Amino acid sequence: MTQNIYDDEEFFAGYSRLRRSVEGLDGAPEWPALRALLPDLRGRKVLDLGCGFGWFCRWARQQGAARVSGIDVSEKMLARSRAETADPAVTYTRADMEHLDLPPASFDLVYSSLALHYVENLSGLMSQVYRSLVRGGHLVFSVEHPIFSATAWSHWLPDAAGRKLWPLDSYLDEGPRSTDWLTKGVIKQHRTLATYINLLIGLGFSISHVEEWAPTAEQIAAEPSWADERARPPFLLVAARR
Amino acid sequence: MTQNIYDDEEFFAGYSRLRRSVEGLDGAPEWPALRALLPDLRGRKVLDLGCGFGWFCRWARQQGAARVSGIDVSEKMLARSRAETADPAVTYTRADMEHLDLPPASFDLVYSSLALHYVENLSGLMSQVYRSLVRGGHLVFSVEHPIFSATAWSHWLPDAAGRKLWPLDSYLDEGPRSTDWLTKGVIKQHRTLATYINLLIGLGFSISHVEEWAPTAEQIAAEPSWADERARPPFLLVAARR
Repeated sequence: MTQNIYDDEEFFAGYSRLRRSVEGLDGAPEWPALRALLPDLRGRKVLDLGCGFGWFCRWARQQGAARVSGIDVSEKMLARSRAETADPAVTYTRADMEHLDLPPASFDLVYSSLALHYVENLSGLMSQVYRSLVRGGHLVFSVEHPIFSATAWSHWLPDAAGRKLWPLDSYLDEGPRSTDWLTKGVIKQHRTLATYINLLIGLGFSISHVEEWAPTAEQIAAEPSWADERARPPFLLVAARR
Repeated sequence: MTQNIYDDEEFFAGYSRLRRSVEGLDGAPEWPALRALLPDLRGRKVLDLGCGFGWFCRWARQQGAARVSGIDVSEKMLARSRAETADPAVTYTRADMEHLDLPPASFDLVYSSLALHYVENLSGLMSQVYRSLVRGGHLVFSVEHPIFSATAWSHWLPDAAGRKLWPLDSYLDEGPRSTDWLTKGVIKQHRTLATYINLLIGLGFSISHVEEWAPTAEQIAAEPSWADERARPPFLLVAARR
């Protein structure tokens, strides 16, 4: 079973204070890029893997989705999602993404934001996702970029001129990384960018777009501290079709 | 015009002494991985972009290719290629990859080894490549990995424990990088991994495989100094189909 860190008291308290938890989708700087990869949702059936507080599920309904299913392993997050959603076409289910059994040919879009890098058996999950999509259906997801997740020891290193460098290590060595983020010992699964892509191709997906996200010039103008993120991409965004 | 560094005296002398220049394909550690991406060449028409000393062109003929065309900008390299090839089905042409005009629907495979990262107008070249391939034709190439090419200042940095780290910088900022390799001021074009992939998808290619190459355990056992390469991939290998 994937570590259910979101139900850890300290982690949950910290996560709840993040801008993306308070402001929702617009509080996530990568959201405009992720949104640009989505198909028209009118009348579509949508699955959100790792739905968290349900921001995307509710937004998808506002865009006209016919039915939205959110899955998450965190009881605390689902409790808040349910409390904030008064819409019978949006349902939330508690489930471990390592052992999903999704109904075949049931979704037009499977979406996931920053959740798949917690999943150990990604191959099993993606095989379920492929099966659950209708022919021509879309998969759109974001994960921590492999350059970011490679080293557990993830912090900037100043060079002699005071410039910040990202010290990369162990990129090719896939597997768990224990990092301290919001609390101690958060376990993420590092895999290379090629592994994400080849796993999808091997299942029959066609890759539509790959994005190594970093803030735009406009975003940096608004938040100058984000300029460092252009040294290495924090997020990887992928769009594929069955 | 792409910098023709291979005709620089110092660079050419240094390049000629590299193991891959002396031993050919088997002297290149990434060759087994690249070879694994190739289709059956029997009866096929092949184009090699940046053919260098012609090792791949001659090998392709040994595999049964019907006709092999090698293109390179370096007079010195083509002179040696021609001197070492006695086969009328293999032809070498001097041309600048920035301004190719390839015949349409003429090749079953377009191959390129460690050449495309010198090309400024990659979009124009890949558009030509797409047009020159038959429907279902293959594109297989290697380039310096974007993690490698991002920073002009590319060397290892020891951490406090003496471990080698790869200090990444400017990954998202695409454009020329001037590096000192074999001689001073070698100009390469840095682009992100996503840019390579999306450029191909945008032209109509279907991505078949992406490989972030690093030495295998067997290769490291034979050459222990290569172990560092697993910290960050030196080469990117891509296979796609029209």
